[in-house]
Amino acid sequence: MSEEQKMQKRESAIPENEVFVGKKPAMNYVLAVVTQFNNGANSVKVRARGNAISRAVDVAEISRNRFVQDVKVGQISIGSEELANEDGTKSKVSSIEITLER
Amino acid sequence: MSEEQKMQKRESAIPENEVFVGKKPAMNYVLAVVTQFNNGANSVKVRARGNAISRAVDVAEISRNRFVQDVKVGQISIGSEELANEDGTKSKVSSIEITLER
Repeated sequence: MSEEQKMQKRESAIPENEVFVGKKPAMNYVLAVVTQFNNGANSVKVRARGNAISRAVDVAEISRNRFVQDVKVGQISIGSEELANEDGTKSKVSSIEITLER
Repeated sequence: MSEEQKMQKRESAIPENEVFVGKKPAMNYVLAVVTQFNNGANSVKVRARGNAISRAVDVAEISRNRFVQDVKVGQISIGSEELANEDGTKSKVSSIEITLER
């Protein structure tokens, strides 16, 4: 299974009010965040792992400053997750979860 | 002035108990964090901008999990900074500040 497929499989299991930031341009995820708030969500969690962490911060900042200006940054947490590589070894990767709330 | 020189100029102005994460390998900054705690600091701020944000999270996680295990993640804040480009235009860049504390 390719990285892309894995990512899609993962994204399909994500509950509402969460946006999992990956490798696409930040504006794609900003759109997802803004849509959820426009659909009545009171909080949206922006999550990412590894190199996408920087993009997740961009997504939170762009959403908040440009599109949904009544929204504030709430809890931010960081952590480490262990991922299994295709060859069976494991690697640790950092993660972030940014809660945006009305 | 090159990017490298700008970065150095910036780093020289950084107060104690702060580590500004840039483009070097994460372990360089982990060493700086661990050294500050070993020198008696009770809290160290790990800061970064743009793409280095992911690395700053790595630095915080590696320091905490592997080297200074009595240290916890405290306040995490994100923001946007405006930087002047060399041609006079301005760009916005996201930033993060992670406080590690005993």
